[in-house]
Amino acid sequence: MSEAARSDVVVETAVKVRYAETDAQRVVYHGEYIVWFEVGRTEYCERAGYPYPRMEAEGIFITVTEVRARYRRSARYGDVVTIRTRFGELKSRGCSFFYEIVLPDGAVAAEGETHHLFLDASGRPCPAPPAIREAFRVFAGLR
Amino acid sequence: MSEAARSDVVVETAVKVRYAETDAQRVVYHGEYIVWFEVGRTEYCERAGYPYPRMEAEGIFITVTEVRARYRRSARYGDVVTIRTRFGELKSRGCSFFYEIVLPDGAVAAEGETHHLFLDASGRPCPAPPAIREAFRVFAGLR
Amino acid sequence: MSEAARSDVVVETAVKVRYAETDAQRVVYHGEYIVWFEVGRTEYCERAGYPYPRMEAEGIFITVTEVRARYRRSARYGDVVTIRTRFGELKSRGCSFFYEIVLPDGAVAAEGETHHLFLDASGRPCPAPPAIREAFRVFAGLR
Amino acid sequence: MSEAARSDVVVETAVKVRYAETDAQRVVYHGEYIVWFEVGRTEYCERAGYPYPRMEAEGIFITVTEVRARYRRSARYGDVVTIRTRFGELKSRGCSFFYEIVLPDGAVAAEGETHHLFLDASGRPCPAPPAIREAFRVFAGLR
Repeated sequence: MSEAARSDVVVETAVKVRYAETDAQRVVYHGEYIVWFEVGRTEYCERAGYPYPRMEAEGIFITVTEVRARYRRSARYGDVVTIRTRFGELKSRGCSFFYEIVLPDGAVAAEGETHHLFLDASGRPCPAPPAIREAFRVFAGLR
Repeated sequence: MSEAARSDVVVETAVKVRYAETDAQRVVYHGEYIVWFEVGRTEYCERAGYPYPRMEAEGIFITVTEVRARYRRSARYGDVVTIRTRFGELKSRGCSFFYEIVLPDGAVAAEGETHHLFLDASGRPCPAPPAIREAFRVFAGLR
Repeated sequence: MSEAARSDVVVETAVKVRYAETDAQRVVYHGEYIVWFEVGRTEYCERAGYPYPRMEAEGIFITVTEVRARYRRSARYGDVVTIRTRFGELKSRGCSFFYEIVLPDGAVAAEGETHHLFLDASGRPCPAPPAIREAFRVFAGLR
Repeated sequence: MSEAARSDVVVETAVKVRYAETDAQRVVYHGEYIVWFEVGRTEYCERAGYPYPRMEAEGIFITVTEVRARYRRSARYGDVVTIRTRFGELKSRGCSFFYEIVLPDGAVAAEGETHHLFLDASGRPCPAPPAIREAFRVFAGLR
């Protein structure tokens, strides 16, 4: 993954693997990890004091501009995996998150990152409002 | 399935099974058939001359109030299955569709039905506009 | 839903709605409830002392032969919904489950049922092994 | 995306956006593009004369080790998008593919790449069999 700056604050979310998430190789389909990244990001925003539904209610939408995932091990039906989410960079109009998906035995199944833009209600990129910036900055311990 | 009235007009749509749609039993996950019903319904509306995106653009939304599926055989990755969609009943505020999912060898993998309500832009049930009713009535050959 | 016998024992599982589960009507896509039924069923088997991965490890697979869902209200991104799962009937080669999806305000968003057959490792219907039957019978309080 | 070598041979696959693939921002959920990459890859293998189901039948499995996607524009329900797939590199034990998702108006909605390892039936990385290597090499016009 990239060597970009990232916060040391980690938010952990547990999810149990659903049968729907497996594929014919009897392991979790690689695309499902992208959904788990979203689950981790949702939890992160909540823990940072700015739940994403509240952002949308205030007219701020976060869009995904890039996603990367690297796969090392397989998760299987019934596994309780831990999504470890960290904040990356806070830019004027965007931000990034980093993720690790950890198996019950502690091994890292996958790691990844997502990059985002803030959009206003009309879908145009916009600076993140100060309250949102401040919530992330304080929670993530950014300089 | 129920013995409700249904039109004899059949719209066929072919879809190739995606790896993402399979599960750890190496066959298509049962929930994916519900998505295929939606694919068949979309094609049906288009063929009836009233594409669903046009309905939404005109402020009419169709919601699902009930879904049933009965499974007989399994579809597998790479199979090209045929979705056979028929119109059921047209009521003042709703309608229904019937479906068969047919395997490459002609066997029926699943059959099902969906029931719907028409909603206005505020999400309240409403009568289907005459133009939409007429499109379905003529195409499906309803009395 | 059908008037079939069902157990009074209820297993509750909470899931938080994922953005991936929503659709362009800004509510949860109707097909996702079928996945939640599976999540409830998985939890039920675990609580009954016979986790489904253990069944598969012992060569017993459960397949879905029928699914029904009736939708009443919409769930939205961020909602924590409760899946309430009950056992239905235990037959020689199959069983059934009943579900309610409950919104944070206590309203029922959807209810449904699934019917199942037990399969052996070669994919043929078979009687459920006594240990599995007993686990369900005792936990569900069946006569 | 990376500047890695890639073939000039392009395989195009059309898919119509499903309602199930949209999210509450009324556009296609970013994770669905990863599934479309798989759809393009499946078609590529078929056109190269080595359908992926045949590989699995011969005991060769392809796993995903890395995926990247960059998003530029949004696809919407009902859009017929074109998946443009190209072969990247053929290594002793792996390969890569590149993708573009093109909207009806010709604009690129997203581009991406996937990296893969060949696995034997026991799940261990292995060299691709000569027949598979040759199929890709000839079809993609690799040196």
